[in-house]
Amino acid sequence: VRSERAIIASIARAFRATGRGAPGVFAGMGDDAAILRLGQSLWAVSTDACVEGAHFLSGLHAPEDSGYKALARSVSDLAAVGATPRYFLMNLAVPPARTGAWLRRFTAGMARAARFLDMHLIGGDTTAAPQHAPVSANLCVLGEIQGGRPVLRCGARPGDILFLSGVAGAAQLGLELVRRNLHRRARYRNLLRRHLHPEPRIALGQWLAQHKLATAMIDTSDGLSTDLFNLCSAGRVGAEIDLARLTKPRVPAELLRKKFSPEEMALHGGDDYELLFAVRAEYSARIPARFKGVPLTTIGRITAGSVIRVREGGKLRTLLPRGWDPFR
Amino acid sequence: VRSERAIIASIARAFRATGRGAPGVFAGMGDDAAILRLGQSLWAVSTDACVEGAHFLSGLHAPEDSGYKALARSVSDLAAVGATPRYFLMNLAVPPARTGAWLRRFTAGMARAARFLDMHLIGGDTTAAPQHAPVSANLCVLGEIQGGRPVLRCGARPGDILFLSGVAGAAQLGLELVRRNLHRRARYRNLLRRHLHPEPRIALGQWLAQHKLATAMIDTSDGLSTDLFNLCSAGRVGAEIDLARLTKPRVPAELLRKKFSPEEMALHGGDDYELLFAVRAEYSARIPARFKGVPLTTIGRITAGSVIRVREGGKLRTLLPRGWDPFR
Repeated sequence: VRSERAIIASIARAFRATGRGAPGVFAGMGDDAAILRLGQSLWAVSTDACVEGAHFLSGLHAPEDSGYKALARSVSDLAAVGATPRYFLMNLAVPPARTGAWLRRFTAGMARAARFLDMHLIGGDTTAAPQHAPVSANLCVLGEIQGGRPVLRCGARPGDILFLSGVAGAAQLGLELVRRNLHRRARYRNLLRRHLHPEPRIALGQWLAQHKLATAMIDTSDGLSTDLFNLCSAGRVGAEIDLARLTKPRVPAELLRKKFSPEEMALHGGDDYELLFAVRAEYSARIPARFKGVPLTTIGRITAGSVIRVREGGKLRTLLPRGWDPFR
Repeated sequence: VRSERAIIASIARAFRATGRGAPGVFAGMGDDAAILRLGQSLWAVSTDACVEGAHFLSGLHAPEDSGYKALARSVSDLAAVGATPRYFLMNLAVPPARTGAWLRRFTAGMARAARFLDMHLIGGDTTAAPQHAPVSANLCVLGEIQGGRPVLRCGARPGDILFLSGVAGAAQLGLELVRRNLHRRARYRNLLRRHLHPEPRIALGQWLAQHKLATAMIDTSDGLSTDLFNLCSAGRVGAEIDLARLTKPRVPAELLRKKFSPEEMALHGGDDYELLFAVRAEYSARIPARFKGVPLTTIGRITAGSVIRVREGGKLRTLLPRGWDPFR
């Protein structure tokens, strides 16, 4: 059994002969989205699997919510390079018994996301999955870079300031409420939003790309620690972040009593689909405290070397990537 | 349980509000590939699932062959609109135990196809499948329309002549040999080629698009009867084909004795990845008998109405789409 990183590295090796420096490829494997120079414009293309049991739980999530989220999380990869979402294709593998009402509700939720995100379905494929197999939706999304320049994972330099949008761990908190069957309580409804209906930070990504303000960017889909690790490896740099600075969700006392740590959740909780980005220190004052209502927080800075550290209660300790790895 | 057609129709309905007449969409859902106007050029985008058990059989097929074929069959959708293959992305769902040698061999085969087809891997995603789940590879392929105009499924008119490239049912014959464990015999090796190593008809598709010779085109991935049905429904026309005219594979006597019908195989056998296209009668003489070594056969003509008939032994009978439907 190999880690996701090792698998991707081995695939990259197999295709190196054909994938490196291909004509028209501005950025290829290893980023949130590939960037292609098509005609006079730059286009971002990304693909994501959304599999029942791994990315949504049919016993807990309404089909509409799962359909909405499948598209929203794919679009987050376009936001992460600063692209404007345009088109998508969907490959659906679904067991015969789920092709009726369940599928209609799933596609209704996805159609709602498509309207909200201004995405157009242009094609796809359907396959019958075996009777008890999970539903899987593979989405391929295309977005246009409108002016400026796409932001890749790899451009961070020592001294850059690290920013994070939104509330770190908010989606994980929602998932914990669902897992504990607390999600039907009206007073927690607001805490479920980032888990059930993530809003890819499209406008923020576009703004950073158009003004060439970010040196590197990634969306926090796998958890801050893992995504920060990926951003740092891509740029061959390290980082130092301050736990006290992270905007953490308010955790209900009922969860706190169950040894539930908001800090752990903020550092490693997945599915946030916020933007983590680096900005040259001299430009960092141009980043507002809120962008269209979304808080932007300075969480630390890029360092030389490759170690990632977190300051916690006055002490610096090494931060390991303990977010989501599907093969762990 | 609904048919694939019904499922696709219901998805199309759900997204109609967002998918119809979207800016930049030259052709959307319902064709072999979507056609986008990106900058000054037209691009074809298509996506296909390749699932173990449905599209390849790990007990029978070498991982290298499955990897090769996964990419070749996706590229066939680009050939079917006359596009030149350029880039692809791959979503891989693989059980942890298959991430080692099996995956290396699968990707080696796919890398060989990529070199042969001049395709560049630009991105993707990996997901851990459960322990005994099938491997699935979802590919998204992009190709450029170089001059001329893309050929859609929907342009056939009554009186157009129908052409088919290659040998009808050749891939199915190969599959039957594999199923009967006859594929290791040296004298049958040649009969396996279209099953194991389909060659998408890229040059033929490009030539037809560039010279605007075809009014409608589709690749025969699901079997001639089903693909002809899809081409006719798209154009709201019927067709009449002549069974005697189809180029059929030479079936070994050993198979013929097992009530194995070359005619049935030619009409309904899937996986051929040949091109089926319609040409105005006045231009049909411009279609050569062979194109770069591949035979092109006049198999019939487009008729008014919606019925598809086949002439067999002097008699015309209705031809039903009895090719591949994953939900049957």
